[in-house]
Amino acid sequence: MREQTRYPVAIVGAGPGDPELLTVKALRLLGDADAVVYDRLVSAEVRALIPAGAMQVFVGKASNCHPTPQDEINDLIVRLARGGRRVVRLKGGDPFVFGRGSEEAEHLALHGVAFEVVPGITAASGCASAAGIPLTHRGLATGVRFVTGHRSHDGDLDLNWSSLADPETTLVVYMGLANLPTIRDRLIEAGLPAETPAAAIACGTTPDERICGGMLADLPELALAEGLKAPVLLVIGRVVALAETWGSVGRLPADVVRIRELVAEHG
Amino acid sequence: MREQTRYPVAIVGAGPGDPELLTVKALRLLGDADAVVYDRLVSAEVRALIPAGAMQVFVGKASNCHPTPQDEINDLIVRLARGGRRVVRLKGGDPFVFGRGSEEAEHLALHGVAFEVVPGITAASGCASAAGIPLTHRGLATGVRFVTGHRSHDGDLDLNWSSLADPETTLVVYMGLANLPTIRDRLIEAGLPAETPAAAIACGTTPDERICGGMLADLPELALAEGLKAPVLLVIGRVVALAETWGSVGRLPADVVRIRELVAEHG
Repeated sequence: MREQTRYPVAIVGAGPGDPELLTVKALRLLGDADAVVYDRLVSAEVRALIPAGAMQVFVGKASNCHPTPQDEINDLIVRLARGGRRVVRLKGGDPFVFGRGSEEAEHLALHGVAFEVVPGITAASGCASAAGIPLTHRGLATGVRFVTGHRSHDGDLDLNWSSLADPETTLVVYMGLANLPTIRDRLIEAGLPAETPAAAIACGTTPDERICGGMLADLPELALAEGLKAPVLLVIGRVVALAETWGSVGRLPADVVRIRELVAEHG
Repeated sequence: MREQTRYPVAIVGAGPGDPELLTVKALRLLGDADAVVYDRLVSAEVRALIPAGAMQVFVGKASNCHPTPQDEINDLIVRLARGGRRVVRLKGGDPFVFGRGSEEAEHLALHGVAFEVVPGITAASGCASAAGIPLTHRGLATGVRFVTGHRSHDGDLDLNWSSLADPETTLVVYMGLANLPTIRDRLIEAGLPAETPAAAIACGTTPDERICGGMLADLPELALAEGLKAPVLLVIGRVVALAETWGSVGRLPADVVRIRELVAEHG
């Protein structure tokens, strides 16, 4: 292994939930931290790896409360680092994929606090492996794109639907549950075939993992019937039909088999 | 940690090159392998972690040779597994992102060999963190997409350029070096501004890492001047301009600072 410089702050990706999907580097930094600032997408199993002596600060959204404002999180990290603590800012997935890690990095830079960013397994990769859905596959998808299904401040899902409705590209939607009916409607209106295979993966790679899938047209109703709870990742595209191909031998939840049955029935 | 089932074959992502960016699970499976089948994108530092007693099979492309055909790789993995070996098929990055992991999974399923897929840090995440370039950032990029810059069999780069020329979406091109001039020309013809910030990252997260960047219009010449060697990942979009923002305090190669100078000069 190479020489290791220790920065006052490390913005660390915690991966999708399974603690074994932490990187070796994340595990090392976590084990050596004096203070860990984490949000709600960091799984309980990952939090269990935080050393007993380390200060833990939760900055996510509690059930009835608003999330901690980003400004407060930024200030907290700077304050902890200036107090001489080795700070790990632990974020679900990858800090640079819908993680707002770059906003925290900007703030640290502005205040002269040295830091490093440690990538994590993003939810798309974690859930894809868990569900047996490749994000790309020759002949089925020439590429993949990630968008978020969260509304922006004005309440609108500001996405370029005609560009997203591309049968050659796998579409992954992070935080896709709340607006799933809108996403389905807009994609089909924009020309994506209603029978495009699609899957919804809740709490991927954790003990609470739930997967359902079928045709895009039916996905909101399937997710509702399964009682899926956030965080949910959507994968939409021809590659989803491969999920079942190896379902009987690979590590796959049994309910994935439904995806192919439904696709075969209607597709 | 949860109960661990051991499958005869694990298709494992080795991440971008830094051995500390292996997942904990990848490291465990590697340490317990009887046979490791790896390709040229697996770094020497990661290979150094393969146990001394394990059989190692290199199936990548040697300098003057063709790569091992996919059919032969598929057969080899099945043969090793049937011989009772615990096989790790180790692939650079993530097996399900341009890794052809799903073709190997299909073959294993067809032959009744049980397996699991272990995600890895894909090059986009690894290089983004190394270069200090977020893949998404509020106000700069609503999403990110990954394509490959390799030509298909008929020698054509078969990509939808008008869709890719989207200033709101970060574009990541895997294996982007050989066709970099074509990629630059087609994107600008399709309407992406010539002064869009862009970076080329060679051997990201390894000791051979080299990063250069500036305006999209100049990227092929910049990469040439830097003498970048494959594998090279391209990141094209407004987020690239952030690379310098925290360059003086974060872990960033000094040459990243050039990106902002060049953008400021021409942008």
